[in-house]
Formats: sequence, structure tokens, C-alpha cells
Amino acid sequence: MDTTILQQLTGEFFGTVILIYIGNSVVAGNVLNKTKSFNTGWLHITLGWGLAVTMAIYSVGWLSPAHLNPAVTLGMAVAGQIEWILVIPYIVVQILGGFLGAVLVWIHYYPHFKETENEEAILSVFSTAPAISRKRWNLISETFATGFLVYALLAFTQGEFTEGLNPVIVGLLILTIGLSLGGTTGYAINPARDLGPRIAHQLMPIANKGQSNWEYSWIPVLGPFIGSIIGGIGFLIVTSIG
Amino acid sequence: MDTTILQQLTGEFFGTVILIYIGNSVVAGNVLNKTKSFNTGWLHITLGWGLAVTMAIYSVGWLSPAHLNPAVTLGMAVAGQIEWILVIPYIVVQILGGFLGAVLVWIHYYPHFKETENEEAILSVFSTAPAISRKRWNLISETFATGFLVYALLAFTQGEFTEGLNPVIVGLLILTIGLSLGGTTGYAINPARDLGPRIAHQLMPIANKGQSNWEYSWIPVLGPFIGSIIGGIGFLIVTSIG
Amino acid sequence: MDTTILQQLTGEFFGTVILIYIGNSVVAGNVLNKTKSFNTGWLHITLGWGLAVTMAIYSVGWLSPAHLNPAVTLGMAVAGQIEWILVIPYIVVQILGGFLGAVLVWIHYYPHFKETENEEAILSVFSTAPAISRKRWNLISETFATGFLVYALLAFTQGEFTEGLNPVIVGLLILTIGLSLGGTTGYAINPARDLGPRIAHQLMPIANKGQSNWEYSWIPVLGPFIGSIIGGIGFLIVTSIG
Amino acid sequence: MDTTILQQLTGEFFGTVILIYIGNSVVAGNVLNKTKSFNTGWLHITLGWGLAVTMAIYSVGWLSPAHLNPAVTLGMAVAGQIEWILVIPYIVVQILGGFLGAVLVWIHYYPHFKETENEEAILSVFSTAPAISRKRWNLISETFATGFLVYALLAFTQGEFTEGLNPVIVGLLILTIGLSLGGTTGYAINPARDLGPRIAHQLMPIANKGQSNWEYSWIPVLGPFIGSIIGGIGFLIVTSIG
Repeated sequence: MDTTILQQLTGEFFGTVILIYIGNSVVAGNVLNKTKSFNTGWLHITLGWGLAVTMAIYSVGWLSPAHLNPAVTLGMAVAGQIEWILVIPYIVVQILGGFLGAVLVWIHYYPHFKETENEEAILSVFSTAPAISRKRWNLISETFATGFLVYALLAFTQGEFTEGLNPVIVGLLILTIGLSLGGTTGYAINPARDLGPRIAHQLMPIANKGQSNWEYSWIPVLGPFIGSIIGGIGFLIVTSIG
Repeated sequence: MDTTILQQLTGEFFGTVILIYIGNSVVAGNVLNKTKSFNTGWLHITLGWGLAVTMAIYSVGWLSPAHLNPAVTLGMAVAGQIEWILVIPYIVVQILGGFLGAVLVWIHYYPHFKETENEEAILSVFSTAPAISRKRWNLISETFATGFLVYALLAFTQGEFTEGLNPVIVGLLILTIGLSLGGTTGYAINPARDLGPRIAHQLMPIANKGQSNWEYSWIPVLGPFIGSIIGGIGFLIVTSIG
Repeated sequence: MDTTILQQLTGEFFGTVILIYIGNSVVAGNVLNKTKSFNTGWLHITLGWGLAVTMAIYSVGWLSPAHLNPAVTLGMAVAGQIEWILVIPYIVVQILGGFLGAVLVWIHYYPHFKETENEEAILSVFSTAPAISRKRWNLISETFATGFLVYALLAFTQGEFTEGLNPVIVGLLILTIGLSLGGTTGYAINPARDLGPRIAHQLMPIANKGQSNWEYSWIPVLGPFIGSIIGGIGFLIVTSIG
Repeated sequence: MDTTILQQLTGEFFGTVILIYIGNSVVAGNVLNKTKSFNTGWLHITLGWGLAVTMAIYSVGWLSPAHLNPAVTLGMAVAGQIEWILVIPYIVVQILGGFLGAVLVWIHYYPHFKETENEEAILSVFSTAPAISRKRWNLISETFATGFLVYALLAFTQGEFTEGLNPVIVGLLILTIGLSLGGTTGYAINPARDLGPRIAHQLMPIANKGQSNWEYSWIPVLGPFIGSIIGGIGFLIVTSIG
């Protein structure tokens, strides 16, 4: 990017705020009681998340590369698309953005939390949980899905997510992952999407909330990071075939 | 725009007629008894409204900037995209267009109103209502959603909604808002979409209609206007970061 | 078009075969017993029909203007987009194409007709029927919907349906009409789509078939033709505003 | 393609791995017990498969023509788009890719197989089965659907699936076929998609698996090959009309 570091960090922060505000609101609209979109189902979740990514990229695309995801930032560094020095600062503001985005969801849907007595549903507005709790296989799911994400992002955008219609294609990729690979762990595939909101769930005085399930919290962080390294290296290998 | 004032007002009027005729017909097809699309659900509503915006923009895009929404017009003025002198005339014809569009819905679905005894369903064909009636939070929902709308419109179109595939992207933005933020108040995010049809509901001899719920009517007007100012100013701030 | 008359008629015929084979198969997959897609619902119908139009245009777009619809051909003539001398030949091959397309649906889903005892469901694979039988209002629905179709086609393609991504946008327009205006009469909006298959339903030895409902058959022919004239003239009026 | 044979075979192999990993995971997410996407339905299946094709093409599009389907390879040879010498090698690596992709699905959804006692559901994660078992009509369905696929691919891409937005349009074509023609046999339309995973189902120690239904297995191989020849020749005929 030809933008300043301040612009890039602003973009990554503000873009992740939008990503999580919009994306996690999709889940809120689906699981919280008395919403107009209550129980619409998996197509609602996956279509909404795909579009959340598209719109978040468009919202900050002239400021930063719009990774909006620590695993994507790591994968782009592995593939040589951004400088390593930027990785930690990007990740920090992405997680902060995830936290603030989750707070906005809570405000937006405020009256609906009081109407929802299911603690698991409340937590799912913030963070992912596995369909079947088997740590090894949950970790594999998150790793595979993020590996595919990072490889595919590199393959069709060469790291330029923000050009032309690329934000739409990236959104379709997220939709694809949701429809295919998301059924096991709810496809966090983004540590900022899971960790930032989980901190918000822990700290905020949310009605009817229960435990924040920290025991699972490392899987949607470690899995995406492992996957992003595999995806980045995989791309380098495939492009080196002559 | 290089078009005359008459062309612009024609575009905003006729575009809003189409927007409300198509968009509110989506709701009619979902809630009125005995329609072929009865009770299809939230994906039907949100996909239909997104496409209504896309098609309305395409329908008049060479005449006017195709705001079709008083809050968008205000936000574009705040961001310096149109002259302030045009704001009131645009808003007046947009609301008139909303009224006429709603009359067309009534004609199109005429026999189905007689088959629908639910007064709330009838009113929902015209205007929005909150899922949980909490005025402060309802106002916040409409404000936030319109703030995001106006910011995002500025971010990816720079005020040019009508160029190339932009009408499709704008439609995707409306779909995004519906899927994520619409579950609380039904995402009016457009005073002409709510007020114009509410006047039609009040005045027309619609079968089985009840009260027009004027007590709520100011929220989907005031919220979008506040949000559009926030969104416009927010865009100016983000673009000024150096 | 710079193609020969033979190429144009081939395109209109073969394109309508594909349109009806694909589009009516969507209905077959939704209403015939024991299909894998049984009862998927209105989103299935409307998304499938929109895509059927997109793919049919792509399939013949270098041969003919890909109207694939007598009402569209009439509307394009009204708006001066094609020569009047071509109108009757185009319409004849479009209706023949509709007939042959319906025969292909019957072959494709052959074993499923035997499993379906509902005569209305069988007929719906071929032709439309109103949700509420009120001839005046049904005619208005078909007229309005086709008027919007023809106006919008002219507005965003200027008669060039086959260029670039226009086939996709036209498909989105058909999807839009289905989601919004289709709930009343099932949006024939195309005499070849309704009349051609109705003749096939009458003539072919289809298992479990009942009457072909000729009493209703003139509405999805006359309505679209009236609508196309209104849409074509409406476009001329709007573009003449200075 | 200007790429080496090794690059092309890598592309066809690795692209088919991705296609089947993503596409068959869509089915797994829909039919295996306790997934978050359980029983979402036909729109889930068809949208997911369409996107699987789009993303698989993007993933390898600079290496190979991204047929990812032996029937498409045969059809492209019939239409003169690739050399005949490449047909057998392409087909071999596509089927190997289908096998490996299916193994990845099994790993990704591993704990869910144990929770699913329905042998037909388990098999459907790997290979297709007809809705009504009538071999003649099943063969016709697969033949027709693949004929349309190959004709349409040639018509709108002239064999260049990988350029610009073509991967998205190809995905929409697959979605179209699923929504319209898929209701009878589950639209294999690709021998590598059916045969490769069936071999994996036979060989792998999958929990709760039953027979691999080899008796039906030749139909989703032979039908697509016949259809691809018809589609390729049909395209040559249509383009020769003067």
C-alpha cells in the first residue's frame, strides 16, 4: 500500500469494527428471541457473513489492504505480500476492532438480550463454539478452513483484496467456506472475530450471559494461524511449479 | 449530475415510485394471505429489498443520482456530494414517490388484502414496526443502520451510485443491512420508504386495515436523518486521516 | 444485430427452448413428488427462473438479441430497438421454442410425473395459474409486472441484453420481479413461457394430467403484451424529458 | 494454455481436490447429524456446489484450463478447444483429485460420521444416487444436464473458464443446473465428482458406512460423457449456422 502506517492501522481497526458489527449482528438477528429474522437459519448466517466481509473491505479499502483478520495478515506475510514488521501492529488493532464491533452489536440488539434466556445463544452472538466438542478435530477444521481461505485469497487476488470487484469475490469465498466447511466449528477462521468479541462477552454486563468458554477459545486462534501458514506456503509451492 | 433540475426531480420521484412499488411488494408477497410466496421469510424480504434498490437505481440512473432516500440525500449534502439547495426538493419528490409506489402495491396485490385479517400484517406492507417497542433502542437501531449505509455508500461509490455495476453493489449493501441490522426495527433506513407509504395506508380505503401507528412514525424518520449526518461526517473524518 | 435472419430466428428459437427447459424444470423440481428438491419453495423458484434467463441469453447471445419473450420483442419494437418486420417471426419461433422446452422438461422429470397425483401441480410445471382467481386483477398484475420488465430492460441495457455482464443483470431483474410481483399470478410475463408449454400440456400424454385451464390462458398472453407497450412508451416518455 | 504439461496436470489435480473437498463438504454439512448446517436444504446444496466450482477454478486458473471434470475435458476436445492427447492424462488426475478431495471431507467432518447412522446419508456425502431408481431415465437426466453444461460453457466462455469473472459465471451455471435439472439424480454431471469419492467410500474405514452402490455407479460416468459429446457437437452445429 502507498498509504501511511497511520492510515493502514486506521483501516485495519475501523474495518474490523465494521466486520464484527455487521457479521456478529447477523448471528444476533438469527439467535436472539423476538428479532424479525429469528431462526432464519444457516443461509442467513453464511450469506450475511460473506457480505459483512465484502462491505468491510469496501469501507476501508483505500486506507489499508483490508485483511481484517490476524490469520490473513500472517498468511500474507508468509507469502511475501506485506512486511513482517507490520504483522503485530495489524493484529493488535484487528483484535481491538473486534472488541469494539462486538460492543456495537450489543447496543444494536440491546432489548433482545433480555428476551433471550439461552446462555449458549448469547455467547454465540460473540464467539464460535463447536458442533461436537472434540478438540483435535475442531482444531483440524479451523486449520483446514483457514488454509483454504488464505490459499484462495492469494490465488485470485494476489493479495489485492480491495481492487475492483475483488471485495465481492472475497465475500463469495467467505460464503463458500461457510456453506461447505462451517458446519463443524462455525468457521471462526479469524482470531479477531473470535477473541475480540469473547473479551467483550467477558467484560460487558450483558443480560442473561453465562460463561465465556475460555477453555475452547484457543482453538479459533491457533487453528487459523496454523492454517494461514500452510495456505501461504502452499501457494508459494504451487506457484513455483514450472 | 449534468442533467437538468427537472430531470433530476423526475429521476428521484420516478425512482422512488419503483423502489417502493417493488420493495413493498416483496413484503406484500410475504405477509398477505394466499400469495404464492406467502411466509417465505427473512431471506425473501432482504434479498427482495436489496434488488429493489438495484433495479430502481438502474431505472433512473441517467436522470438523477438515484438517492431515492431523504437520508441519503442529506448525507450526500453533508459530505459535499450535492448542493444543499437540492436537498428539500429531492426529499419532497422522494416522499411523493413513496406514496405513489405504495398505492401501486395496493393495486397489484388488491385481492389479497381482502383475504388477510391481520391488521399488523396489512400495515407492514406499508411501513415498518419494531420487533420490541423500546423507543430509545429503536431510534439507536435506525440511526446506526443508516449511519453505516451512508458511510459505506460514500466509501465505495464516492457518491456515484449509478456507474457500471455500482447499482448491484448498492443492492448488496442493502441486503447486508437487512441480514445483519434489520432484525430489530425492520430497517426503514429511509424516511420516504416509511412515511410515504404510511400516508397511503392512512388515506386509502384498504381492506382490513387498522391504525397507521403514527405514534412510532417519527423514529424511522428521525433515526435515518441523524444516522446520515453521522455517516457523512464519519466519512469526512476517515478520509482526512493522513 | 449484424447476424442473418436465420441466425436470429435460430437464436430466438433455441434460446427459448433452453429458457423453458431450464426454467420450467425449476418448477418441476419444486412441485413433483420425490424429487430431491421437492418443496424447496419460492426462493428456489425465483432464483432458478432468474438464472434460467441469464443462461439462456448467454447460450444464444451472439446469434440474436435474446428476447426469448414475445412481450419483450413487442416492447423493443415499440421503443424502436428492432424492426417491426421481425416481430411476428420472432414471436412464432419463441412460442415453438417454449413448446419444445416443455417437452424436454417432461422427458427430464419423466418418472416423477407418475408419482404426482395432484393435477394442479402437474399443470404448474407447464403454465402459470393465479393465486386468487380474479380476472381483472390477475390481468393488472401481469400487465404491471411486464411493464416494469420492459421499462427496466430498456433503461439499463438500451436493448443490448447480451453484452458483458448484462445477462446476469437481466437475470437479477427477473429474480426481482419474482420476489416482489410474482406472488399474485406466478409472473408469466412472457406469452411464450405460458402458451408454448400449455400447448405441450394439452397435447402430450403426461401421466396424471388434468385440464389445461384454457379459460385462464389469455391473461398471461394479453397482460404481458399490454404491459410491454406501456413499458416501451413509458421509456420513450422518460427519456424525452429535457 | 501456455503452461507446461506438468503445470496443467497439477492444476487439474489440485483444482479437483479443492472442488470435491469444498463441494462434497457442502453435502456433509447438510446431511450429517449435529452439524450446524444440518438439513438446511436444496438451496444450501446448490449454492454451495456452484461456489465450489467458482473457487476451485480461481484456485488453479493460472495453471490449467480448470476443467476439473472429465466430461468437460471430453467436450472441450470434441469442440476443438484442447488437444486430444491431453484428454486421458487430464481425466486420470481429475479422478485422483476427486478421491483425495473426498478423503479431506472425511477428515474435516470426522466426528459427525460417528453420529450419523443412516448409510444412505453417509454415501451421499461421497457420491450421487437417483431420487427414483429408473436407469434409463436416470441416464437421460445425467446426459441432458451435462449436454447443457458443456454447450453453455462453450457458448459463453469459448473454453476460457478462468478469465476475469468467468469463474463466477461458471459457478452460476452450476447453480442453475442444480436448481433446475438436479432434482432427479442429484446432478453428478462430472465423473470425477462421483467416481473418485465412491472409490474413497469403498476403501476408507468410514464410520457407519454401508455399500458403495456400484450397481448405479456407471450412470454418473456414462451419462456425462454422452452428454458432453452432444453438447460439444451441438455447439459446433449452432456456430456453423450462417
